[in-house]
Amino acid sequence: MSGGFDAQASGVYAIAVTPFHADGRVDLESVDRITDFYVESGVTGLTILGILGEAPKLDHAEAVEIAARVIRRTRLPVVVGVSAPGFAAMRALSRSVMDLGAAGVMIGSPPSLRTDDQIVSWFGQAVEAIGPDVPWVLQDYPLTLQVVMTPGVIRRIVTDNPSCVMLKHEDWPGLEKISTLRKWEREEAMRRVSILCGNGGLFLDFETERGADGAMTGYAFPDMLTELVGLVRDGRRDEAHDLFDAHLPLLRYEQQPGVGLAVRKHVLMRRGAIACDAQRKPGASLTDAARAEVEYLLARLARRDARARLQPLAA
Amino acid sequence: MSGGFDAQASGVYAIAVTPFHADGRVDLESVDRITDFYVESGVTGLTILGILGEAPKLDHAEAVEIAARVIRRTRLPVVVGVSAPGFAAMRALSRSVMDLGAAGVMIGSPPSLRTDDQIVSWFGQAVEAIGPDVPWVLQDYPLTLQVVMTPGVIRRIVTDNPSCVMLKHEDWPGLEKISTLRKWEREEAMRRVSILCGNGGLFLDFETERGADGAMTGYAFPDMLTELVGLVRDGRRDEAHDLFDAHLPLLRYEQQPGVGLAVRKHVLMRRGAIACDAQRKPGASLTDAARAEVEYLLARLARRDARARLQPLAA
Amino acid sequence: MSGGFDAQASGVYAIAVTPFHADGRVDLESVDRITDFYVESGVTGLTILGILGEAPKLDHAEAVEIAARVIRRTRLPVVVGVSAPGFAAMRALSRSVMDLGAAGVMIGSPPSLRTDDQIVSWFGQAVEAIGPDVPWVLQDYPLTLQVVMTPGVIRRIVTDNPSCVMLKHEDWPGLEKISTLRKWEREEAMRRVSILCGNGGLFLDFETERGADGAMTGYAFPDMLTELVGLVRDGRRDEAHDLFDAHLPLLRYEQQPGVGLAVRKHVLMRRGAIACDAQRKPGASLTDAARAEVEYLLARLARRDARARLQPLAA
Amino acid sequence: MSGGFDAQASGVYAIAVTPFHADGRVDLESVDRITDFYVESGVTGLTILGILGEAPKLDHAEAVEIAARVIRRTRLPVVVGVSAPGFAAMRALSRSVMDLGAAGVMIGSPPSLRTDDQIVSWFGQAVEAIGPDVPWVLQDYPLTLQVVMTPGVIRRIVTDNPSCVMLKHEDWPGLEKISTLRKWEREEAMRRVSILCGNGGLFLDFETERGADGAMTGYAFPDMLTELVGLVRDGRRDEAHDLFDAHLPLLRYEQQPGVGLAVRKHVLMRRGAIACDAQRKPGASLTDAARAEVEYLLARLARRDARARLQPLAA
Repeated sequence: MSGGFDAQASGVYAIAVTPFHADGRVDLESVDRITDFYVESGVTGLTILGILGEAPKLDHAEAVEIAARVIRRTRLPVVVGVSAPGFAAMRALSRSVMDLGAAGVMIGSPPSLRTDDQIVSWFGQAVEAIGPDVPWVLQDYPLTLQVVMTPGVIRRIVTDNPSCVMLKHEDWPGLEKISTLRKWEREEAMRRVSILCGNGGLFLDFETERGADGAMTGYAFPDMLTELVGLVRDGRRDEAHDLFDAHLPLLRYEQQPGVGLAVRKHVLMRRGAIACDAQRKPGASLTDAARAEVEYLLARLARRDARARLQPLAA
Repeated sequence: MSGGFDAQASGVYAIAVTPFHADGRVDLESVDRITDFYVESGVTGLTILGILGEAPKLDHAEAVEIAARVIRRTRLPVVVGVSAPGFAAMRALSRSVMDLGAAGVMIGSPPSLRTDDQIVSWFGQAVEAIGPDVPWVLQDYPLTLQVVMTPGVIRRIVTDNPSCVMLKHEDWPGLEKISTLRKWEREEAMRRVSILCGNGGLFLDFETERGADGAMTGYAFPDMLTELVGLVRDGRRDEAHDLFDAHLPLLRYEQQPGVGLAVRKHVLMRRGAIACDAQRKPGASLTDAARAEVEYLLARLARRDARARLQPLAA
Repeated sequence: MSGGFDAQASGVYAIAVTPFHADGRVDLESVDRITDFYVESGVTGLTILGILGEAPKLDHAEAVEIAARVIRRTRLPVVVGVSAPGFAAMRALSRSVMDLGAAGVMIGSPPSLRTDDQIVSWFGQAVEAIGPDVPWVLQDYPLTLQVVMTPGVIRRIVTDNPSCVMLKHEDWPGLEKISTLRKWEREEAMRRVSILCGNGGLFLDFETERGADGAMTGYAFPDMLTELVGLVRDGRRDEAHDLFDAHLPLLRYEQQPGVGLAVRKHVLMRRGAIACDAQRKPGASLTDAARAEVEYLLARLARRDARARLQPLAA
Repeated sequence: MSGGFDAQASGVYAIAVTPFHADGRVDLESVDRITDFYVESGVTGLTILGILGEAPKLDHAEAVEIAARVIRRTRLPVVVGVSAPGFAAMRALSRSVMDLGAAGVMIGSPPSLRTDDQIVSWFGQAVEAIGPDVPWVLQDYPLTLQVVMTPGVIRRIVTDNPSCVMLKHEDWPGLEKISTLRKWEREEAMRRVSILCGNGGLFLDFETERGADGAMTGYAFPDMLTELVGLVRDGRRDEAHDLFDAHLPLLRYEQQPGVGLAVRKHVLMRRGAIACDAQRKPGASLTDAARAEVEYLLARLARRDARARLQPLAA
């Protein structure tokens, strides 16, 4: 398993949540606590200020402070989301965090891109904005970003931009895309990039079997994700699926768009990784019914995975 | 459990696949066979010629022939998908199938609708087109249909159009929407409609607990769906979740957009319900890797559910 | 100027409106009248059952009856819009109208297509559906059809499908696209197709100068369009622009999405080309304010173009 | 004509371009020059850092510097575009520019909003972010912003948020929307807001007649826009249309999405209002063919409007 943020990277990059106090201020103590939590979960890297890190709700100064704090706290590579509607903001944030010691940045595309050429050209301009020496992750997430990239387009971007070292794969469905990219790599028709999978981990069992190097997602049990990736790497297929299947009911529940982040923060709070599950406004919160469903799922999971044995919620 | 297609309907309406021969001709014998298969699975109704019934690939005569055959074959209510870009085609197909004895029709909205008023007005025009005496299902499926309906918009449509008897709920996430609609019904702020859930059944465990009357989906184990709805109705919550969780890995695999229909038809063929898993062109087919994944999921499922114990695939 | 519907075609193909009585029935007498009107306007062809021909509001029998009537009435080539969500309906209508003597068909793409490969592949399947011997027009209309085609994608479609003889160009902005396609043609990097321009004619003055062969649009003064194309062909640039500019205020008013068809039908009725300006439901109608604006624009136009000197509206 | 930025505001707010040197640096001297140019054109206000002000290409410091410079340079009200994907950035820019003396801000919605409630709620959150005391313009621009607002939704936003003083109306088509809003105002069913029209001015002739208070657009002849608004206000209808029609061929050419800004900057450079027509990357530039077309349109316009009599371009 590679220790660095490069085209060989594997394992799990946790998509970090941003902890807030109930009144909406950033909870810096919880930033430390969850950083430690991720590290202890065995992740190989951290991705901060992504979509589910509530980055658009942070101003520049807050974003930089959080990045600085996480980077100081861990020796693991830290990747920072810098997607922005304009290249000026992308450049500014990218420079700030690279100066602070970030390992690289992650870039997702704006929804206006339609044709293959528009997509390829936009990423070229993004690289020109951040500078050709900054390693970066290409985020392929059509469900949310509204941009559809064929394997051929990904190859063009990877070929045009040597600083692209990783694909955050979250196309849906996407198993054949992984197989195609890995086949091209074997045939030397495309250089290698690391492929880590997002989409809440909903297909991670098979994605890793298809050739993905691991996960980049924020599921509230990152320790399960790292164990799963290890089992697959060791060829212990049935055990990997047993573990995955035990988590799938909760994982699926957390993967719901919109409300999923509330579930994730709630479970992380229940596990003691953050002090408060609040989102900065505007954000969804869990209804009583939803909270009870999460407790039920945790209780069921606890019978199969000791990690889910939590203290009961105070009434 | 209601036997009729009305606002009290419950249980499972199977979204029927349309069987084809390998050369693309409709396989009428398999139409009979799968109709019997659904009936024996305990469903309370059938929905034919939906999106996953490959309806747009059928010409009018074929569509009418299939509808006639299914309606003759079963005494269960048969609902027919009549969504169309224009009201003329919708009216024509609706009249044809109602004359043949269909219980009602299902209508989904075109992607151009944006504002609340546009949506409400369009459904009013659709009802004017098919006639106010034809009972119909409102399909709420933003992921595919691109139209987002608030609970308030659904209430307006239901109130304006007494012939709307059922909601095919497949918003995602959608648990709170069910709770809101059921709350309004209890408060007599909205008349009752049957709510059956689609979206491949991915949240059926909780949807039924939130007040849905059952499922309208095409998962290849409709017998599991009917058993699940029964367990929930009988208050056997843990058993319901045990059953659901056993199927979730396969159910999730089948729920993938695009490729999911190929999985579904393949499993239905493996279960003997249709002779051939071909889709009429254009359609996705399973790669060898995907087929092996489905076999693996079936084998794992077979350990927990005898229904999945199938003859091995011929090499 | 070519007389046939082929890759050399030039001049104006009128996008024909479909006349209805006030009660929504097809007005067959006006179908004849407007066919004659278009012919007398000097058009080189007719395109019927397009988006602005209210085709989705017609059932199959009505569509076929109208096509038959227009085809019988004129010796000019008649192209029929056959865009449909499914290939079965597209094939059925295409066969019917080709049997009746249509010169060819027009095909626009569904909004779900995103990547270059998806677009190219979909048109290949469409050609397979209608048969490789049916000449057809490729409609490139991103504003309404939601599909964006680069010049390269158009070249791939044209190259893959020898039966594609014409491009209905209505990208916006699109002048450089015309220049690119014509440059490729001159360099023998792409075979010739006829390029006729839509988009209500809003850029026809420069489109023809960039190499378009004429217009395919439904502006209520087709006689102006044919005169304009002739002036450009004869190199009488200033006269062409003088004519165009005189019409631009009204032409722009008619080009408004949604309400534009009501303007167009109203002016055609004012010119005596159809008996009634009603649209079949659902359709926009002109408010009193809008009708007065159209009258004002006609009165202003009448000072510069005698064709606009109409009888006053009855109060 | 109101001198302030409030619900009575009328006249023309120029959407200001941001001048750059050929190498992409902000051209501060031209910022001054074009500010003076707009003032001399008779505008009643300025809107800076809008979509066509290339705002997303500016970093925060540049944006603030430009705003400060323009605000210092003129006593006219200056409105600043603060649309951003997140409320943190919106709040930060809004505070900065209000501190500098801006009259207010302009807010457009993100493309993800679909239902009426989502739109109303989002604007409420935006006002909470910038503070309830900051006067602001509601931008209604579906063609670019992808959000469709009914008159009823606009009324809800205006009613909920007393700090909303102006509507930038650029729905298309939108004449009836203006009439509806003004009718509600007359019936006291909605409080008054100023309505200024965008969309490049393409319908300004009739929009002002329908009750709009003027224009907020960046057409390169703002002096024509101010004259037009004055003629309409004085009831000199035919003269207003004569003036408008003379400009319509160029105005339409400039209104093309994407390439339009290049046309606008080019004409402003030709008129001496900025030193260089370059856009910061990424931006469209004019081909030789397009530049020649603009020259031709200017030459034709010069025959009818002396303002267009410019020095010939150096070869």
